[in-house]
Amino acid sequence: MNPAELWQRYQDWLYYNQDLGLYVDISRMKFSQDFLTSIEPKFAKAFADMKALEAGAIANPDEQRMVGHYWLRSPEIAPSPELRDAINSTIDQIETFAQAIHSGAIHPPTATKFTDIVSIGIGGSALGPQFVAQALAVPNPPLNISFIDNTDPNGIDLVLSQLGDRLATTLVITISKSGGTPEPNNAMQEVKAVYAQAGLDFAKYAVAVTGIGSNLDQLAKKEGWIEVFPMYDWIGGRTSELSAVGLLPAALQGIDIRSLLRGAKTMDSATRVEYVKQNPAALLALAWYFSGDGKGLKDMVILPYKDRLLLFSRYLQQLVMESLGKEKDLEGNTVYQGIAVYGNKGSTDQHAYVQQLREGVPNFFATFIEVLNDTSGTGVQLELEPGITSGDYLSGLLQGTRQALYENGRDSITVTIPSVSAFTIGALIALYERAVSFYASLVNINAYHQPGVEAGKKAAAAVLALQKQVVAVIANSKTPVTLTEIATQINAVEQTEVIYRILRHLYANQRIHLKGNFSMPSSLEASLK
Amino acid sequence: MNPAELWQRYQDWLYYNQDLGLYVDISRMKFSQDFLTSIEPKFAKAFADMKALEAGAIANPDEQRMVGHYWLRSPEIAPSPELRDAINSTIDQIETFAQAIHSGAIHPPTATKFTDIVSIGIGGSALGPQFVAQALAVPNPPLNISFIDNTDPNGIDLVLSQLGDRLATTLVITISKSGGTPEPNNAMQEVKAVYAQAGLDFAKYAVAVTGIGSNLDQLAKKEGWIEVFPMYDWIGGRTSELSAVGLLPAALQGIDIRSLLRGAKTMDSATRVEYVKQNPAALLALAWYFSGDGKGLKDMVILPYKDRLLLFSRYLQQLVMESLGKEKDLEGNTVYQGIAVYGNKGSTDQHAYVQQLREGVPNFFATFIEVLNDTSGTGVQLELEPGITSGDYLSGLLQGTRQALYENGRDSITVTIPSVSAFTIGALIALYERAVSFYASLVNINAYHQPGVEAGKKAAAAVLALQKQVVAVIANSKTPVTLTEIATQINAVEQTEVIYRILRHLYANQRIHLKGNFSMPSSLEASLK
Repeated sequence: MNPAELWQRYQDWLYYNQDLGLYVDISRMKFSQDFLTSIEPKFAKAFADMKALEAGAIANPDEQRMVGHYWLRSPEIAPSPELRDAINSTIDQIETFAQAIHSGAIHPPTATKFTDIVSIGIGGSALGPQFVAQALAVPNPPLNISFIDNTDPNGIDLVLSQLGDRLATTLVITISKSGGTPEPNNAMQEVKAVYAQAGLDFAKYAVAVTGIGSNLDQLAKKEGWIEVFPMYDWIGGRTSELSAVGLLPAALQGIDIRSLLRGAKTMDSATRVEYVKQNPAALLALAWYFSGDGKGLKDMVILPYKDRLLLFSRYLQQLVMESLGKEKDLEGNTVYQGIAVYGNKGSTDQHAYVQQLREGVPNFFATFIEVLNDTSGTGVQLELEPGITSGDYLSGLLQGTRQALYENGRDSITVTIPSVSAFTIGALIALYERAVSFYASLVNINAYHQPGVEAGKKAAAAVLALQKQVVAVIANSKTPVTLTEIATQINAVEQTEVIYRILRHLYANQRIHLKGNFSMPSSLEASLK
Repeated sequence: MNPAELWQRYQDWLYYNQDLGLYVDISRMKFSQDFLTSIEPKFAKAFADMKALEAGAIANPDEQRMVGHYWLRSPEIAPSPELRDAINSTIDQIETFAQAIHSGAIHPPTATKFTDIVSIGIGGSALGPQFVAQALAVPNPPLNISFIDNTDPNGIDLVLSQLGDRLATTLVITISKSGGTPEPNNAMQEVKAVYAQAGLDFAKYAVAVTGIGSNLDQLAKKEGWIEVFPMYDWIGGRTSELSAVGLLPAALQGIDIRSLLRGAKTMDSATRVEYVKQNPAALLALAWYFSGDGKGLKDMVILPYKDRLLLFSRYLQQLVMESLGKEKDLEGNTVYQGIAVYGNKGSTDQHAYVQQLREGVPNFFATFIEVLNDTSGTGVQLELEPGITSGDYLSGLLQGTRQALYENGRDSITVTIPSVSAFTIGALIALYERAVSFYASLVNINAYHQPGVEAGKKAAAAVLALQKQVVAVIANSKTPVTLTEIATQINAVEQTEVIYRILRHLYANQRIHLKGNFSMPSSLEASLK
């Protein structure tokens, strides 16, 4: 394609939305008009699926649930007055609570104000809040936030030790929809124990975001935690950023949550247009489908040229991969779907792996995220030389890389937003939520369940159950026992390797003694210390 | 394979090294003995290549350079007394400097001690220092560190504003081997301007890590910066963590750099063994080659089950992808090599994208990184229920996920280290450096150049040059000018799209005025504000 044709293609496909200040450019995906024509029937179905979903259809048939994240920013379209009220009252509750915390009306027992937040949650209960906290950070927030998103005792200790004396002015938010996910539950117990050690009454520092009636809800009520905010079964973890999960930490950090919601709502309107070329989410889904042949043959590399958007790719890893990474389609055929997502930020990544993108294995498409305003309006910029700023370099590096990728036959999408603000972050979240939904319709899968996650929990529980048996055998034996003896005694010879690894882990934590040749598992003998 | 056979395979292939406390398990890669036999001649070449490299061969023919990162931790094997002295004297210089900073012998003009570090660098000058800072963080370090790794003015402002008044006690390290990379150079100028605005003499806060005689070296000397630490042309950016690039920030943070070096040196010894089954780096390279058929057909997913190792995957993205992502092999054949790398940490990622790994598109192999000691020896752990700790969950989740992936036909490697310490982090870095070198030999590419990075810089420079011309046209015109008029006047009609995007960026930063229909680029007219 010569430069004039390419420029024409760029203009033909350029999407612009004035309300959002958003541009989407898919001209550097090499699809043809025929491809678009051929895929239009699938989009007709995708638009219809979306309409049904927004109207309250059981869009998650596995779990017999509605999928309602779009209602969070447009309560008026929720399918019942009860749902509308629940959404509105939760937003009000969050704002009232945040004001009370900021003013000191709610304060820790021994100080006039809370200074910090520790947010405990995993998956959707961490990735959205982390992304938004970094994207919309201000220099002197009303409260600083840190995150515990794992069951790593050393990681938990590190977060708490970095708080130091401020522990006594730290609000702890535990976010768990089911209230039964092990990682946040363990972390909450660890944190609680540290408060107790410090002589602090944990309940006076604790709030929960959880499903009404969950174990966590019951615990919080029994112990008299400061407040509980509701989660709903029609919100999935990976689309929960604009529920209490994301709004509570955001409001506490001083982020304008009404703007976040308004950005998402505005994007939702833009992505309801039932015409592919005028629908930015449909354009993304189209480009993804084209690039990976509807089979995820290419990875999605996310390259925001803006430091504040560093965590967007991690957020999208969950949204895209957990939604689309499915073995079966809706008819039960084995399809092994998905799209792998990675990336950090430009131009930083140009000095990391962009070498491979430009010259190496062509197994990806890039998504450039361009932010037009360089300073978020903070004023005059330094001129490095007459007429050239650091932001011009950033912009030039994006253009240069996009061009060079294209010249080497690598496809890319460019999403352009005017600035990083609560409004545009809300919009970006909604854009990708809708694009994922459309793509799931195109490839005929259920985007709203995650059967593999449950399987992982079960496998881990089995290992823990085995550990208890192993320890019992060692404790009950008067002499050191070999791996084979342990496995035989608990009737788990097929699990010998798992048992071996349990022993190795217990030994490394000084909970049992092991002797023998460590390069020969069969030689090892275990005893209590 | 039945459980007994699998357990036998596990034991047959288990690598253990007592000095390192390291295990490597590739039993869950489904290669056969025949595959190993067939690849042995390639390994013979890889071992020979490595011997030549370590002896000082021109291993980077493009740039006519030796590749000497292995000498950094074993100066005695460097090919000349001058090199040995340079390595040893730099380590001494770093330790002496860090002691002087810690004691206050070197201090900022208006305070008795430095409290913070801002480290400016990109690519290899950031990824290693960031990884090590997080992996080896202590609660109350002698200095806190933050990083500027881009030319994003807003990102730079955010880092500096978070320092607040501590700017006056912040040491600024600018790391740039060539001294001419735009991002760190721009960032340094931005930081310098902020110091000047605050009435602080930047030179009294500044140190450099750079090649002797570079522009940065000259500037630092001219302006009287506190100190300059040398970089060498035989160290590539992505293998520079154990040079002054990584050692200086580490030493300032109170990290034991001699242990880092000793860990790497011990691993180097272990990975010089010329027998695949007894060489952990060769085992990794073998597994990578098998999984992706020597063509990078599968992505490398890095899953350390330890919060402190979160940034290891970002570090490896550069090390692996910049080294292996090459268009040509050493004979000049077009090969499009590389291996895509991504990942964050377990079990966190189990609630993000592991759904896709378990059930979706099987385009990856996983690498589990297991850390046996849960607390880094900080003492008694909380029992969540009798006999079960948070660390047991983490360990169980790793085992469960590895097993479930295997059952679904997904390959994995497990690398096990005893704990996270300076010694083991040095060892991990060295392990992957050597594995990348071996793999490059197996697929016959130059792992030590990065031609695509240079191309990116040139493309960006061309955009900036165009911007100057564009602004000149607008400034010289008495009436608003259209895109086409601008392009025609500067004889760059083929660059119309680039010019359009320059205009859009300038407009968003209030540097020009644009009127017209923003969804129709051809309708726009530009003028000075």
